[in-house]
Amino acid sequence: MKQTQLGRGREFDLIRGFVREQPAIGAPHVLTGPGDDCAIVTAGAVAISVDMSVEGVHFRREWLTPEEIGWRATTAALSDIAAMAAAPIGVLVALAVKADEADDIAPRIMHGCREAAAVHGAPIIGGDLTRSTGPIVIDIVVLGDAASHVLRSGARAGDGVWVTGSLGGAAAAVHAWQQGSAPSAAARSAYARPRARITEARWLADHARLTSLIDLSDGLAGDADHLAAASGVAIVIEADAVPVHNAARDVAGSRVDALRLALTGGEDYELCFTADDADVARLADAFAGTFGTGLTRVGRVEEGAGVRVDGDDAPHGAGGFDHFGAAP
Amino acid sequence: MKQTQLGRGREFDLIRGFVREQPAIGAPHVLTGPGDDCAIVTAGAVAISVDMSVEGVHFRREWLTPEEIGWRATTAALSDIAAMAAAPIGVLVALAVKADEADDIAPRIMHGCREAAAVHGAPIIGGDLTRSTGPIVIDIVVLGDAASHVLRSGARAGDGVWVTGSLGGAAAAVHAWQQGSAPSAAARSAYARPRARITEARWLADHARLTSLIDLSDGLAGDADHLAAASGVAIVIEADAVPVHNAARDVAGSRVDALRLALTGGEDYELCFTADDADVARLADAFAGTFGTGLTRVGRVEEGAGVRVDGDDAPHGAGGFDHFGAAP
Repeated sequence: MKQTQLGRGREFDLIRGFVREQPAIGAPHVLTGPGDDCAIVTAGAVAISVDMSVEGVHFRREWLTPEEIGWRATTAALSDIAAMAAAPIGVLVALAVKADEADDIAPRIMHGCREAAAVHGAPIIGGDLTRSTGPIVIDIVVLGDAASHVLRSGARAGDGVWVTGSLGGAAAAVHAWQQGSAPSAAARSAYARPRARITEARWLADHARLTSLIDLSDGLAGDADHLAAASGVAIVIEADAVPVHNAARDVAGSRVDALRLALTGGEDYELCFTADDADVARLADAFAGTFGTGLTRVGRVEEGAGVRVDGDDAPHGAGGFDHFGAAP
Repeated sequence: MKQTQLGRGREFDLIRGFVREQPAIGAPHVLTGPGDDCAIVTAGAVAISVDMSVEGVHFRREWLTPEEIGWRATTAALSDIAAMAAAPIGVLVALAVKADEADDIAPRIMHGCREAAAVHGAPIIGGDLTRSTGPIVIDIVVLGDAASHVLRSGARAGDGVWVTGSLGGAAAAVHAWQQGSAPSAAARSAYARPRARITEARWLADHARLTSLIDLSDGLAGDADHLAAASGVAIVIEADAVPVHNAARDVAGSRVDALRLALTGGEDYELCFTADDADVARLADAFAGTFGTGLTRVGRVEEGAGVRVDGDDAPHGAGGFDHFGAAP
């Protein structure tokens, strides 16, 4: 990957430091890496997404180390590449910190970004570093090779609705912090060190005909609503089938509370997809054997619109996380 | 350009509004536009850059309307596409505003983003909308077709150093505001409504062999230093040759002050490039006739390193804008 030399100045010294410490990883699609006005990538079809994390909204400094702030923001963005079943090409990191945090916090955040990008197979190919007047802001741009990909829009009545892993772990950590207690190690890890299901998504797309795919960033209820809207169908979630994360069960006061964390908590970065049930069911064992986590059928696609949660004592009106919605 | 339907929620209502108001412009490289987890673009080589603007650092609310905040941030980012002599493909806008500004300020900022993107020939193909705890933050991602492009790294000793337009206009506006006075209309317009020299860059790359190219975002002195570092050469700026913007002359107390604004003020978004002098000189009239602005030779490339400003009373130690540098 070609890197271009920058001129003088403290801002550029910091950027040089970030670039120098990058582990050598293959970057077959990167024609020009950091240092010029743009990076240049080569691929027939490039998937691109941007994901902004703001201190006090997406994370708190008391909850996470700077390295974890960087890891989490980068993984959240890479999860959009998983959500297309695309292959990562590279990551750009735009970071704003206060002037007196440039030497300490910024390199530690960038270290977390680099680590998360490398674990998911993506080099950092560019970015921006600027001063903030207040909160830390990280905006992560992800690029993927979308030669083959799966959209949100192909779900058909009769398909099953499936998820990977278990849901509500990250929400359990936030719930604990908000109650003034320390989250369990499992909950904290789910929140602070998520993984993007990139390999899993590509494996699934290779082995089954996924009709639609999304990652669970806003919570199953809200994200299923996006799938339903994009596909012009209704999605019915079967409450009893939802794989609730143990950490959510442990922290919640009741089964309904645990289910609410799993349905609306968000930030699990698991996958939700639709497909012919028989097509997926035959893969469940191989998936679990390969990835050490489950595939669970959580509902069905019907004619209609919107999302509905079935079950005797399902939480009503369960929506996803909405940045500008009414406070719960 | 394919757009995907989103689910329910106020955040997504806002995004729907942004997308709905987008003018129809050609988007031949956009396979999938807003609404899915990623946008998808198709091009053999894709140039990409990200540019973050933070309230109180890059702009102040007292200086600009929300529409101008969006315009300026988008144009600043598109200027990186000009700096590669690439062709715009699309823009993604990540925006953070306070919760109570979502209905008023956010749509107005997005209007400015859309306008600037459309004027430069780029649709908005995605983005992110989130809550801020404090400042408005806009992060603009730009994508360009880089099938042909010009890097920073090819300047050779003997080349001339050229710029488009005149320099210091935007800095003159900031200077006036900082002195507590209102900038002239020309200075304000240079700061609030810049244009990215995308068409000009492509015309120049088509008509001459540019050996290196950069846009003037940090100021001629700082940006020439980047060209010098990337190319492994020295750049000598001839102070008397620098085309100082009339607004900078008007606002400055002396010729030296005006020159300092032109060399270090930044945010002019003009182009700086190196090429064989004879190759460019023969184009000057045609360029001026086509674009209504000049091409000026401002210096030369020499063996060595760094940037030097020649001239009897040139400002000494003129560096570019550095976010984390010592205050002047």
